[in-house]
Amino acid sequence: MLQNYQFQSADRILAGVDSIKNIAKEAKSISKQASKVLILTQPFIIDLDFFKTIISELQDEGLQVDVNTELEPEPTDANIEGIYHNIKTEGYDVLIGLGGGSVLDGTKLLSVLITNECLLEDILGTDLVEKEGLPTVLVPTTSGTGSEVTPNAIVTFPAKELKIGIVSKHLLPKLVILDPVLTVSLPKPITAATGMDAFTHSLESFISNKANYISDTFALESIRLISQSIVTAYDEGDNLEAREKMLIGATYGGMALTAAGTAAVHALAYPLGGKFHVTHGVANSMLLPHVMEYNMNSIVDRLAEVAGPMGINTANLSNEEAATKVVEKIKEWTARLNIPQNLSEFGVTEDDLQSLAEAAFNVKRLMDNNPKPVPVEDIKSIYKKLLS
Amino acid sequence: MLQNYQFQSADRILAGVDSIKNIAKEAKSISKQASKVLILTQPFIIDLDFFKTIISELQDEGLQVDVNTELEPEPTDANIEGIYHNIKTEGYDVLIGLGGGSVLDGTKLLSVLITNECLLEDILGTDLVEKEGLPTVLVPTTSGTGSEVTPNAIVTFPAKELKIGIVSKHLLPKLVILDPVLTVSLPKPITAATGMDAFTHSLESFISNKANYISDTFALESIRLISQSIVTAYDEGDNLEAREKMLIGATYGGMALTAAGTAAVHALAYPLGGKFHVTHGVANSMLLPHVMEYNMNSIVDRLAEVAGPMGINTANLSNEEAATKVVEKIKEWTARLNIPQNLSEFGVTEDDLQSLAEAAFNVKRLMDNNPKPVPVEDIKSIYKKLLS
Repeated sequence: MLQNYQFQSADRILAGVDSIKNIAKEAKSISKQASKVLILTQPFIIDLDFFKTIISELQDEGLQVDVNTELEPEPTDANIEGIYHNIKTEGYDVLIGLGGGSVLDGTKLLSVLITNECLLEDILGTDLVEKEGLPTVLVPTTSGTGSEVTPNAIVTFPAKELKIGIVSKHLLPKLVILDPVLTVSLPKPITAATGMDAFTHSLESFISNKANYISDTFALESIRLISQSIVTAYDEGDNLEAREKMLIGATYGGMALTAAGTAAVHALAYPLGGKFHVTHGVANSMLLPHVMEYNMNSIVDRLAEVAGPMGINTANLSNEEAATKVVEKIKEWTARLNIPQNLSEFGVTEDDLQSLAEAAFNVKRLMDNNPKPVPVEDIKSIYKKLLS
Repeated sequence: MLQNYQFQSADRILAGVDSIKNIAKEAKSISKQASKVLILTQPFIIDLDFFKTIISELQDEGLQVDVNTELEPEPTDANIEGIYHNIKTEGYDVLIGLGGGSVLDGTKLLSVLITNECLLEDILGTDLVEKEGLPTVLVPTTSGTGSEVTPNAIVTFPAKELKIGIVSKHLLPKLVILDPVLTVSLPKPITAATGMDAFTHSLESFISNKANYISDTFALESIRLISQSIVTAYDEGDNLEAREKMLIGATYGGMALTAAGTAAVHALAYPLGGKFHVTHGVANSMLLPHVMEYNMNSIVDRLAEVAGPMGINTANLSNEEAATKVVEKIKEWTARLNIPQNLSEFGVTEDDLQSLAEAAFNVKRLMDNNPKPVPVEDIKSIYKKLLS
């Protein structure tokens, strides 16, 4: 393990039950002269109790608070730039993103558009953002994306039927608040898909060609925390211990993928999102067991290493047996958590497989991380398993 | 585990063999207009090969490089402020700290003195630094302190026979480079003391009253990496794999202590440093097994949890047995690594114990983290074990 590798994350993470109650004090400490903040969130969130708490905490601290709920799920370029044009002259001192991955990604992008006075097309790709963004506070309400600690954001370009990533250290937030109370009301299907998405981040980082000591630390601990809690969080949404483990596990997933990158699961997921609007979490969850099965012969020893953290008793098992049990357990979860199994529900037909497979094959940034090459024909076979 | 907790670290960590070769590019990316940098380091380092590489990398990138070797081991207020007065008008864009914990602490402090135009007495304590410091790059050449990722710095005040901590988020660096090649020439006694110091950071964080999911992650992984490599790094200084594990393990120790705080070992170590000049690493290493033995009845289950990561076969062991083996293993290392065992070598006599114990008792910030209270009489008994 002798290549170079790196770690970067949010400036600061505050975690624990009711940690959200510190948001006003924290926002002030980030930007001492802050007087006006914008909360970007989702429409249903503004009716929840914790949202009212947040608003009154901020107002009690003397801050003017505006709220914007226009960011759409898996936001498009037009959606983000539309909001940018509406808010750019408002003089916000801090942006607070409160929601799932789409809200967090959108908040990160808006913060740099405002200070760089640019459009998305100017920053598509890696390290093209010139200036630091407005200070951001990111507060995830799902345990999945990891976006709160990654320098990445994804934009959907409907005209191109594509999702494109923007990567810059300037997308990293000043503060992340991980309060499990905020995830208690997550519906079961979202708990399942986002949780398996987080697990995918960690497992893919662990088997990535770029895995290293630092990414392994976060990947294995994320796998351990999620394995201990995903079924409980699904069955008993108000179990705060399970929700806390899921939230920390998902954030570690983001740290792992920042350090090691994800691989073929993510490469195969992107075209499903761009063309068929399968959300990122669902697409990853559906693909995960099948891609791991495909990779199996190249990653037996690495998969065997995650068996222990997944709670599998490995006494007297060979690495082959342990690795097989890992994939079986993932399949078990997929069934137990009612993850969708059929791409035809999303309108995918056999006729689409060739173009989907070619698009996935071309996500070279991620495919290069996969422990073995995946030719277009094999990608088609993997997708096909989800059509039966 | 329901109280709030937090994580903060360096903005970015770059790691791996020869990662130091990226220093010039990295310094430029931190501060785009950088033209003049100051390297703070130790006299013996400027004769080492890697130092010449660093200088030429920086100069090739068009940077003017000055070098200062005036920071003393465990630097005093007068030492740091003397350097501050000499360099404050030089217009440095980036400070690079290259050395052990004293150099890193000194570099962190100088960076904030310069931008805040203040003296140390203005910032003694927690969160008293107003403005961000000059951007710093911290490059540890020992695997011990963890200073490269903590918001803490320690200053010795000879007039008061005290060491006092300064804590501020503004002490965190922009970049850390963890290159194991730089630690290859560490002498055996320094490898031993700094390595056991790092282990102490992690073990104390793990048993701290403020331990949490985040600190546990770093503490356990640090314990695992150090346990795998400390004896090898001591015996075979040029074993790069062992050196790399030690370096990552020590940095994780810094992250763990930032998230959970250290406890009685550190509280007992400070007075030995302030009055008898026992270096931080040596003091911690000497005290560790004795304080753990004292704490034992309060931390059996927690100590049992670290047995596995320490490589102890726990099959068929009760928690009591596993915890006992943990302390035995620490004692084994202390002997194997020739850690000093006798405080009288440093001039401590029985007559000093009362005032040392009172001073340790008053390090309340750390004593409050200890899993059980340690009355002055018990502190004296612990010190006394190191006088026999």
